Amino acid sequence: MKKNNLEKVFDKLFPINRSIMGSGFRKSLDIITKGLNFKKIKFKSGQKVYDWQIPKEWNIKEGYILDPNNRKFCNFKENNLHVIGYSSAINKILNLDDLKKKLYSLKKLPNAIPYVTSYYKKRWGFCIKYNQLKKLKPGKYKVYINSKFSNGNLVVGEKVIRGKSKKEILFSSYLCHPSMANNELTGPIVLSEICKKLKNKRLNYSYRFVLTSETIGAIAYLKKRGEYLKRNLIAGYQLTCLGDRGNFTYKKTKLSNSYSDYLAIKALMLKKKKFKTVEFFPTGSDERQYSSPRFNLPIGSLMRTPYDKYKEYHTSLDNKEFINFKSIQESINVYLKIIEINEKNKFYKNNLGFGEPQLGKRGLYGNLSSYNAFNSELSTITNNFFWILSLSDGKTSSHEIFEKTNSSLKIFNKSVKILKKRKLISVHDL
Amino acid sequence: MKKNNLEKVFDKLFPINRSIMGSGFRKSLDIITKGLNFKKIKFKSGQKVYDWQIPKEWNIKEGYILDPNNRKFCNFKENNLHVIGYSSAINKILNLDDLKKKLYSLKKLPNAIPYVTSYYKKRWGFCIKYNQLKKLKPGKYKVYINSKFSNGNLVVGEKVIRGKSKKEILFSSYLCHPSMANNELTGPIVLSEICKKLKNKRLNYSYRFVLTSETIGAIAYLKKRGEYLKRNLIAGYQLTCLGDRGNFTYKKTKLSNSYSDYLAIKALMLKKKKFKTVEFFPTGSDERQYSSPRFNLPIGSLMRTPYDKYKEYHTSLDNKEFINFKSIQESINVYLKIIEINEKNKFYKNNLGFGEPQLGKRGLYGNLSSYNAFNSELSTITNNFFWILSLSDGKTSSHEIFEKTNSSLKIFNKSVKILKKRKLISVHDL
Amino acid sequence: MKKNNLEKVFDKLFPINRSIMGSGFRKSLDIITKGLNFKKIKFKSGQKVYDWQIPKEWNIKEGYILDPNNRKFCNFKENNLHVIGYSSAINKILNLDDLKKKLYSLKKLPNAIPYVTSYYKKRWGFCIKYNQLKKLKPGKYKVYINSKFSNGNLVVGEKVIRGKSKKEILFSSYLCHPSMANNELTGPIVLSEICKKLKNKRLNYSYRFVLTSETIGAIAYLKKRGEYLKRNLIAGYQLTCLGDRGNFTYKKTKLSNSYSDYLAIKALMLKKKKFKTVEFFPTGSDERQYSSPRFNLPIGSLMRTPYDKYKEYHTSLDNKEFINFKSIQESINVYLKIIEINEKNKFYKNNLGFGEPQLGKRGLYGNLSSYNAFNSELSTITNNFFWILSLSDGKTSSHEIFEKTNSSLKIFNKSVKILKKRKLISVHDL
Repeated sequence: MKKNNLEKVFDKLFPINRSIMGSGFRKSLDIITKGLNFKKIKFKSGQKVYDWQIPKEWNIKEGYILDPNNRKFCNFKENNLHVIGYSSAINKILNLDDLKKKLYSLKKLPNAIPYVTSYYKKRWGFCIKYNQLKKLKPGKYKVYINSKFSNGNLVVGEKVIRGKSKKEILFSSYLCHPSMANNELTGPIVLSEICKKLKNKRLNYSYRFVLTSETIGAIAYLKKRGEYLKRNLIAGYQLTCLGDRGNFTYKKTKLSNSYSDYLAIKALMLKKKKFKTVEFFPTGSDERQYSSPRFNLPIGSLMRTPYDKYKEYHTSLDNKEFINFKSIQESINVYLKIIEINEKNKFYKNNLGFGEPQLGKRGLYGNLSSYNAFNSELSTITNNFFWILSLSDGKTSSHEIFEKTNSSLKIFNKSVKILKKRKLISVHDL
Repeated sequence: MKKNNLEKVFDKLFPINRSIMGSGFRKSLDIITKGLNFKKIKFKSGQKVYDWQIPKEWNIKEGYILDPNNRKFCNFKENNLHVIGYSSAINKILNLDDLKKKLYSLKKLPNAIPYVTSYYKKRWGFCIKYNQLKKLKPGKYKVYINSKFSNGNLVVGEKVIRGKSKKEILFSSYLCHPSMANNELTGPIVLSEICKKLKNKRLNYSYRFVLTSETIGAIAYLKKRGEYLKRNLIAGYQLTCLGDRGNFTYKKTKLSNSYSDYLAIKALMLKKKKFKTVEFFPTGSDERQYSSPRFNLPIGSLMRTPYDKYKEYHTSLDNKEFINFKSIQESINVYLKIIEINEKNKFYKNNLGFGEPQLGKRGLYGNLSSYNAFNSELSTITNNFFWILSLSDGKTSSHEIFEKTNSSLKIFNKSVKILKKRKLISVHDL
Repeated sequence: MKKNNLEKVFDKLFPINRSIMGSGFRKSLDIITKGLNFKKIKFKSGQKVYDWQIPKEWNIKEGYILDPNNRKFCNFKENNLHVIGYSSAINKILNLDDLKKKLYSLKKLPNAIPYVTSYYKKRWGFCIKYNQLKKLKPGKYKVYINSKFSNGNLVVGEKVIRGKSKKEILFSSYLCHPSMANNELTGPIVLSEICKKLKNKRLNYSYRFVLTSETIGAIAYLKKRGEYLKRNLIAGYQLTCLGDRGNFTYKKTKLSNSYSDYLAIKALMLKKKKFKTVEFFPTGSDERQYSSPRFNLPIGSLMRTPYDKYKEYHTSLDNKEFINFKSIQESINVYLKIIEINEKNKFYKNNLGFGEPQLGKRGLYGNLSSYNAFNSELSTITNNFFWILSLSDGKTSSHEIFEKTNSSLKIFNKSVKILKKRKLISVHDL
């Protein structure tokens, strides 16, 4: 079976050893934003961002253990999860007991290599399947990690597609996890696909795409753009866990009934997806940072199975087999629906508004009284005219008006277009 | 059986050929407002009112068709619905095929003459029962309409009965339809009956009565009084379809929970009427104009069977047989109940308000402690005193207070009167 | 069985002949506030307080009737309810018929002496059991009351225990009823017990205790402190009927959803008490005065069986047998719970608030990424940290935050303490 583009980019990205800073992050960002012209905002090692300080870059060449028989295992080259993220360099002989203190495994998932990092405290260590750990025999083990720390940059990839209004929707994801599939790559892949779809479109609203490292990247980005976002953001989503086979879960914004929530739930309904909603909770992904008290941005997270609901999360079992490219495509489609709904959400102002305009003289209403009009059916378009004119107060959204009419969306849009062309209404954004 | 006054006025009005302008309208207005001293506000032909222009007056003397055997039919003198409203003059011989292009009928109601008008576009035509149309034989037909257009006036009949407060309730209806009963004459008849009942009463609130032509008359009136109404209207109703045998239907205001809505629903309940409510929709009668975005007046419509729910609507079958004078009287009574409730809706201000006043020293409370007061019953009036004093904050309406008390309205009103007389509360309007 | 302190104080207070002014009131106030250092606010006889005027003091030495056989009955010394409150002096011979006009009894409760007063109108009279009344034989009766009126003071006992915040909760009761138990002494006893518990505590909020005469005392007090209370009161309760064996009834404040209501209902629930709530009504005790329109203070009343629901109310049957000291203690405990909840109700401000603070560098979060964090459990305390930081906007109360967490209160408080110590949040009052 031929690979589709989603799979191609996934396969390129999956093996790369990403971390919050370093060459793996940069390379991944280049691949996933290819042709999309993302701006790279850099924060230097040592720089303070609010309560945080940008750490050094971490780059690793090799990492493995040699067993008493000189056989390599926990080899970073076989699976980059074997070395804990931000491990310092080591080259040492240890006996089994001392080695075990440096090994991380999951008894409950004996065939999974766990994902472990230590960004802000110097340490080294290896991650190993519990089943393999159990079999290790006493003897001398050599641990070898060739890594180094150096001044560098935390990078935020940012792209804003400008529409007519500067009011915007934010799509944010993170690119700092090494070889994991659902809880890493599906977020950036969905994000870049949305971006591709929009980049050449004439849009009413602006759309912002942010790819960075979880937590510190979002915080650094807020330092740069938080105030702007407070003024201009109308909705936003943190993208993660978008590729498994489960149904959708929408984690609501802290406000619980924001426009983000409206759009997400509406899109899921219009797409006829099974889904459930969960209220905001302050653990999770970067919606936490965006929703912090001084920014309070309405960021929700439309996922499939959330991170806290599948056991493979943050292990080597969150891999290509775990996800499904059809699911990713579905997730893209729901997010595109959110945009579609938003693009159509206009606010009309009745340019006259003092009584009804005379539709007849414009050929928009029969100049012969529609006898028995209420028994024979008023044409849908005429009925739309009356609804739109009656509710065009600049505050009732087009969706709300549409839902009153019983019209098809097509006829409704046609009705709006006619009224607009005749200058009976003017259309504006939120 | 002797005709009651409702029937007498109905019989006078029914045959008159009304239209939006012209002698029929003027004559009808004079009849229905006889002794009520309505003001006539005039808008000249050619004058702009918002998006509209006042048309010319239309007056017609004769209108008929002669069949190949020289027999008259579609004779305006037999039923003024036979000639479409605002028909231009014609005197011409036609063959059957050409004639048929000028004939309007209703296949579904083969014995009804439809009601058709063409106010804003010059045309001529006749309305005919479908059963009669079917029988027309080929041959030469003479069509004859003796009508003329002339500069004149659109008239709004207006009467304001002033009460102590200039806050007011509007009753609006239209008088521009020719010989139809439920959807024309019942509205003006109910309106004038209310007006008669109120004209010599001492009232707390003001009441405004408006009789004009549907749509253009309401728009012209808004041009004149819209700003005043925005400041002073507390409720209002468009009167139509008030004479059939059906139950009541209350079409709510656009706000859906306005004081108009409260009063109408309350009146229907107190009168123990069967009724249903429907949400506002922007087709219908002049509630559309009053509710347009720049005025947004809270106008509801308390009807019996609404225009869109009976097949005789806008045809010759909406005639005296279709209606019932008992139904009209019931409709009047419900509207009078609305007024009665409104008249009683006061706002009280506790003139002291710092703790309770000493009722005992005024003889309003036993100066002997009412031992076992809570087991024996506190007299209703005393209990009312406490409720009224406690809630007299100037914002809680008398109705709300009354509903807390479990008192009869009579005793409640007596309680208020006493407190007011003793200057413990002052009473004011909305 | 040994008397507990509640019973001891009850036994001291019960026999005293209290009234709205006079030595009985003063003596009772001294007993019940012993060691609590209440301030005595005095209002002189003749002074105007709003619509009221402070009456004279009433003091009585003797009161009885001699029957035709010279046997004493209705002896004030046997039961002070026998003489109506504020009786003027009398010394007179009457025949039975004239005597009966001066006797008050309850046919429905034939063994009860009713409680009757006449504060504002001079009269004299006796209260008698109906069963005794029935047996009186014709003949000469001597009525004797040795009482006098003199200028004096209405006294309000007031104690404010100051906490860190000057925002306060009011506990109010009255001490003007003679020998009755549930509807008199239980209120002051509960009030003084709360006061004792709080007096040496370091408190976050202030607590105000008011003991005075019902109605006129509360009104006089409002004259003195009403404006201050309007600015600083956050909740308040009128204490009465707290000692019978019935379940709790909470009479809500006029606002119906005030902080007073929240605290009372919460306390009852946390204490797992059976209770019902009733909406505010403007008869009852001094919540009426506090809630009057110009003050509108949110005063509720947490009672057991309310005054209007037990037949012994305001009679000699509301005595020591009717109440139960265990019930009084339970009532005290619920009020103390109200205070406990209030004391803990803080408002947090995230001192950083721009994204999350870096908990790891403070040792408040693992510096090793908590692999599989969502499947293994995040420690409760860490989860609390995130909730508290996320919701520390200065407006969300600690209770609301606590209820989101699923943490025990102990761990929650520990979490707050840590965040506060680390200066990540600051804590403030309402």
